[in-house]
Amino acid sequence: MLSSVSARAGTRKVILDDDGFALAQWMVIKAPDVQVLGVTTVTGDLWQKEATANALRGVEIAGRPDLPVYGGATYPLVNTEAQTERWEALYGKLVWKGVWMKHWVEPTRQALPPYHGPDVVPDLPQGNPTLEARPGRAADFLIEMVHSYPHQVSIIATGPLTNLALAQRLDPEFAGLAKELVYMGGSLNPRQTRPDEVAHQFAREFLNAPRREFNIRFDPEAASIVLRAPWARITMIPVDPSTDTELTPALLKRLSASATPVARALRTRPTGFPLWDEIAAGVWLDPGIVTRKTDLFIDVNTQFSGSYGDILSWTPGYEPGLGERRNIVVQKIDVKRLEDLMTQRVAAPQKPVSGRPLPG
Amino acid sequence: MLSSVSARAGTRKVILDDDGFALAQWMVIKAPDVQVLGVTTVTGDLWQKEATANALRGVEIAGRPDLPVYGGATYPLVNTEAQTERWEALYGKLVWKGVWMKHWVEPTRQALPPYHGPDVVPDLPQGNPTLEARPGRAADFLIEMVHSYPHQVSIIATGPLTNLALAQRLDPEFAGLAKELVYMGGSLNPRQTRPDEVAHQFAREFLNAPRREFNIRFDPEAASIVLRAPWARITMIPVDPSTDTELTPALLKRLSASATPVARALRTRPTGFPLWDEIAAGVWLDPGIVTRKTDLFIDVNTQFSGSYGDILSWTPGYEPGLGERRNIVVQKIDVKRLEDLMTQRVAAPQKPVSGRPLPG
Repeated sequence: MLSSVSARAGTRKVILDDDGFALAQWMVIKAPDVQVLGVTTVTGDLWQKEATANALRGVEIAGRPDLPVYGGATYPLVNTEAQTERWEALYGKLVWKGVWMKHWVEPTRQALPPYHGPDVVPDLPQGNPTLEARPGRAADFLIEMVHSYPHQVSIIATGPLTNLALAQRLDPEFAGLAKELVYMGGSLNPRQTRPDEVAHQFAREFLNAPRREFNIRFDPEAASIVLRAPWARITMIPVDPSTDTELTPALLKRLSASATPVARALRTRPTGFPLWDEIAAGVWLDPGIVTRKTDLFIDVNTQFSGSYGDILSWTPGYEPGLGERRNIVVQKIDVKRLEDLMTQRVAAPQKPVSGRPLPG
Repeated sequence: MLSSVSARAGTRKVILDDDGFALAQWMVIKAPDVQVLGVTTVTGDLWQKEATANALRGVEIAGRPDLPVYGGATYPLVNTEAQTERWEALYGKLVWKGVWMKHWVEPTRQALPPYHGPDVVPDLPQGNPTLEARPGRAADFLIEMVHSYPHQVSIIATGPLTNLALAQRLDPEFAGLAKELVYMGGSLNPRQTRPDEVAHQFAREFLNAPRREFNIRFDPEAASIVLRAPWARITMIPVDPSTDTELTPALLKRLSASATPVARALRTRPTGFPLWDEIAAGVWLDPGIVTRKTDLFIDVNTQFSGSYGDILSWTPGYEPGLGERRNIVVQKIDVKRLEDLMTQRVAAPQKPVSGRPLPG
């Protein structure tokens, strides 16, 4: 596996770690001069097994069955479903709980995903994958890759940070050997900026908890481990810039207008979500998408309290210095430039595998 | 004392509880149809003894030496200076610590108040009071008043909530016998809206801690006790509406233009602060000042963590139901109307004491 990919020098090496698989991953996989070393999955919005099935089907659709997919952690480090229910009894109802979600508190435009256990993998809307995940675990793969390509591997993490925390505790050299971490997670001071109903409904998540975001809240201890690890560079994509974005029916129509398999697969995708993960992918592919950013030290509240999983941030000079790192925090993006990039990537011809033209 | 004030039926009865004494208190004392039952003091920005001296001098200047002033709590319930220093070592430096403030973290336009112990009362810029505080304690006075005038007494609290928490635990009937609580405290999602340097510097307090505000953070346990008490009505003035306001040199000039003793006393007052407490006074005097408000359940994080003292809030339906109450949360105000009210009150002739014309 490594022989074919390592031949492509000069490209940017990246691993995509997510609790699902969708547009963000396709954007990166279909980008020029990018070598995706692999896709790793974790539980969050979906259980790891379902996320893995999505990833396998995703790389198939992208015409990249060569891309290795590794299943990662099934459970957060400390947080559990029962503990979350006790937390809610003490501290109030969460708007979104990922795989632990049984009902919306208020009427919500988005469909409620089916509630099931970690080993159930429902049939996928895009068809089930024929590929299988590679043997081995996401954390081990992540560690192997940073040792194989020291200081060359970017990690784009768009789900809970459980795999990365495990990798760091399995191998203290892990983060330091990566090139950088780009993560979608956390929330600073977001504000609803779009007037529509979708934006209004997603604002529920931060209106009374400006520092809470699902990826971090689902596994706060993992997030704190990762955010205190010695990365050379960390880019944070909090909720804040996403409030300017939305996968509207018009945008989806534009994205799915071309004839590529990815564009075709997008046609049945539900609309009405902020472009959280797409911003992370877009910022990594084209840093010019960022129109405002700042440097902050970032950590996570890991005490079991009403603020469990909340982002802690410090202007440099105020931080406690307990291992928290300076993050490049993306505050605002050029939405048109992101949407253009998404459209281009989706419409691009499939990339050849190892220089050979693609079948079909 | 009670005989003269109880004679004025039809007026709105109020007690002013604060960690200092300034414009907000004068606005209420000089308002028509308002009967200030007393002024109570607490430690926060100033130690209680210094706050008491300020209050005594303040009622003197207002020509109301008849108004009783009661000293309140010297220390927060649980929080201490030493604990705050350990907290900072663990969770980062606080921007403002009130009486525990030894230096600014960053260069700051505002003067650093002198650091001293609880029993030191520095000479006051307006001259020292000749009056003395009444014997007895603020908490007992508060309890006595709500029993004397059940369901008639408003309490405007603009400092830490220690006195009110003590009153509630001394007498579980306390909050339920009051008419209402109006408090300046807490922070939800404030944003810098004024472009000047003062606004920029005060934004440091909430930029990395949108839920933290000094009055609540100084005594989080007291705040939680008070916010879970059975008030008939609670109005919260968080930091949020204050970012539109500032005591500028121009506003101070306007306020101090008249010939009243209060206007004269204002002339040497330092400028460059948001109108935190003045909003609370103004909203109580003229509810029409409020241009946007919402109903939220409010409590405080009392666990010793990076979010210690942070406001917890819930849209109705999400709250845990552990005693937290529905607050009317003031989000936005008519700044001109507030400034006009301040100017009118400062310029108004001194109110007579018990119907007798004032001396001098």
